[in-house]
Amino acid sequence: MAYADTRFATRRRALSAKLAGMRIDEMLVTNLIHVRYLSGFSGSNAALVLAKDLTATICTDGRYTTQIAEEVPDIEAVIDRPSAEALLARIEGPRRVGFEADYVSVAQLEKLQAACQEDVTLVPVTGIIEDIRLTKDNTERIRLTEVAELACEAFEQLIDAGELAVGRSERDVAADLEYRMRRLGAERPSFDTIVASGENSAKPHHSAGDRIIHRGDLVIVDFGAHSRGFNSDMTRTVVMGEADEFSREIYDIVLRAQLAGVEAATPGTTLVDVDAAARAVIEDAGYGDYFVHSTGHGIGLEVHEAPSASKIGEGELREHMTLTIEPGIYVPGRGGVRIEDTVLITAGPAHIITPVKKDLLVV
Amino acid sequence: MAYADTRFATRRRALSAKLAGMRIDEMLVTNLIHVRYLSGFSGSNAALVLAKDLTATICTDGRYTTQIAEEVPDIEAVIDRPSAEALLARIEGPRRVGFEADYVSVAQLEKLQAACQEDVTLVPVTGIIEDIRLTKDNTERIRLTEVAELACEAFEQLIDAGELAVGRSERDVAADLEYRMRRLGAERPSFDTIVASGENSAKPHHSAGDRIIHRGDLVIVDFGAHSRGFNSDMTRTVVMGEADEFSREIYDIVLRAQLAGVEAATPGTTLVDVDAAARAVIEDAGYGDYFVHSTGHGIGLEVHEAPSASKIGEGELREHMTLTIEPGIYVPGRGGVRIEDTVLITAGPAHIITPVKKDLLVV
Repeated sequence: MAYADTRFATRRRALSAKLAGMRIDEMLVTNLIHVRYLSGFSGSNAALVLAKDLTATICTDGRYTTQIAEEVPDIEAVIDRPSAEALLARIEGPRRVGFEADYVSVAQLEKLQAACQEDVTLVPVTGIIEDIRLTKDNTERIRLTEVAELACEAFEQLIDAGELAVGRSERDVAADLEYRMRRLGAERPSFDTIVASGENSAKPHHSAGDRIIHRGDLVIVDFGAHSRGFNSDMTRTVVMGEADEFSREIYDIVLRAQLAGVEAATPGTTLVDVDAAARAVIEDAGYGDYFVHSTGHGIGLEVHEAPSASKIGEGELREHMTLTIEPGIYVPGRGGVRIEDTVLITAGPAHIITPVKKDLLVV
Repeated sequence: MAYADTRFATRRRALSAKLAGMRIDEMLVTNLIHVRYLSGFSGSNAALVLAKDLTATICTDGRYTTQIAEEVPDIEAVIDRPSAEALLARIEGPRRVGFEADYVSVAQLEKLQAACQEDVTLVPVTGIIEDIRLTKDNTERIRLTEVAELACEAFEQLIDAGELAVGRSERDVAADLEYRMRRLGAERPSFDTIVASGENSAKPHHSAGDRIIHRGDLVIVDFGAHSRGFNSDMTRTVVMGEADEFSREIYDIVLRAQLAGVEAATPGTTLVDVDAAARAVIEDAGYGDYFVHSTGHGIGLEVHEAPSASKIGEGELREHMTLTIEPGIYVPGRGGVRIEDTVLITAGPAHIITPVKKDLLVV
């Protein structure tokens, strides 16, 4: 069999290796992100079955007959619906078939079971594809770098064009940034763009509203682009016109915390230690109570994915993982600062794929 | 108890009435859209429990302490996580507690069960909140009309500004339309904007790519805005510069089909009959094989929701339902036309909330 694109076959091989240790004969994949990861198919309805011997079958409906032939030349495609049920009905037992228990609903499981032949047993499986996704292969690293560069360029254009300006609303600034990402090739923002100005900068989960940006405001801009399945995520905080002493103080602390986090992000370091490296800088400066979230998260096909750099983060970093490093200080009523990069973990120092400069930008 | 906003209490009363007939003592709501529908809370993590006696408790995490107090003044709020488990742990048995089996995953159910006290029984429930959502209350009808008007205005601005023009890419036109919706107050597009030109107009699921729009092209623009939880959806097809005979022919047929569909959309008409009314016009004109999708769908908190106007659509229309009416003809290699309005079902004729004119627009 000729593989048009070996990365999908390589990923399926990794999954098949996991099945071998689990008394699972075939794995039913229904999470669309995972179907895309394992096959390249990007449509909105599909399921895939992978057997231990690497035989794979994918199923979608009649809307995608042409698209699946183009995107998935290397595995058998069935046109039928509902897709998962159609694939299960084809399996002849005795077989133990794994299903994605984190994504299949209780109601859907009943339908899947009804579609199975008598001696097919459905077995709940969790986390094994996520485990493979933890480290990014070559194509993923390229795509993630590309989409991060696109977002960086959009931000720099926004600043150069003077669109982040006193007198404009948060919403309009967000609209301009999203428009620039779109024109540069993004399919959409990877999440609702955050433009948090003045007192809103002290709210870690503010998005972008009607508030007009004033002179002296801190403005947190947290944004990302989505393209070809992959996401970016970064944050810069700028100050409008002039920075008062408080703004300079917390900016300096957050920047030092962020640099400490990046420096700690090397293979073998626990996620707890990465979080602690950034957090210690903020705690030592007396602002520990104002850093109310974790230091970072993995990013790839999802904006938030494993690992998690937090006080309770599990495991340690490995080469080719991704991680955001995004400490912040939020003082209610006064203002906040967050600085965030996305890094690729390498054998050496972490590689920053969002290299917009981090000196306090006064616009 | 003073209700800041009676619509949420009214919706909870409707749910409680359904529980009464089901031997369910309390209902655990975990679908965030349903939590928002029943309480007004718009954060990204929450669960809600409603008892038959209308006692309600909502739970979110510490990020939303301020927001939940503002958005949900009328029911008890608990700050804890994981939220659904925290609410379940508070319930003292014997109790039968319903959970949303269409949205709770198999893996999550295990965690929910572990959180329950001994004499609490979890009972799978499907469709009851969706049933209530089928007809839109006064606030919903206002919000849906507002977001539809916003999208209409953005489209008219796009046309007036000459941004849908020969020589531009589909992607750039989509970016301009999305930008205009954003500036008019949308939080985001309600789905990826479709700009399908020339041969792409014959692909019902094309989105918006690099193709440059040419003179003579049919261009399908299918788009919507999302604001304050609600979505809009509409489609217009324009022709660039001049329309050839084929374009005029299929445009005329689709327009007549669309008008027939709108005319049929009255209370008491079955969804199958609404579909048939539009479909018959296209079939009679000899293009039946080229109308490859259903005639329409409900819209509200989700872009696609019940009811479904299709060959297998269930039930009949009732006052205050919404429905899109969107017939199309797609001739591979030649081109396609789709015309879509969203209507509100009234006691009289359907009320079109996307009233952009539908004569063939030559730009």
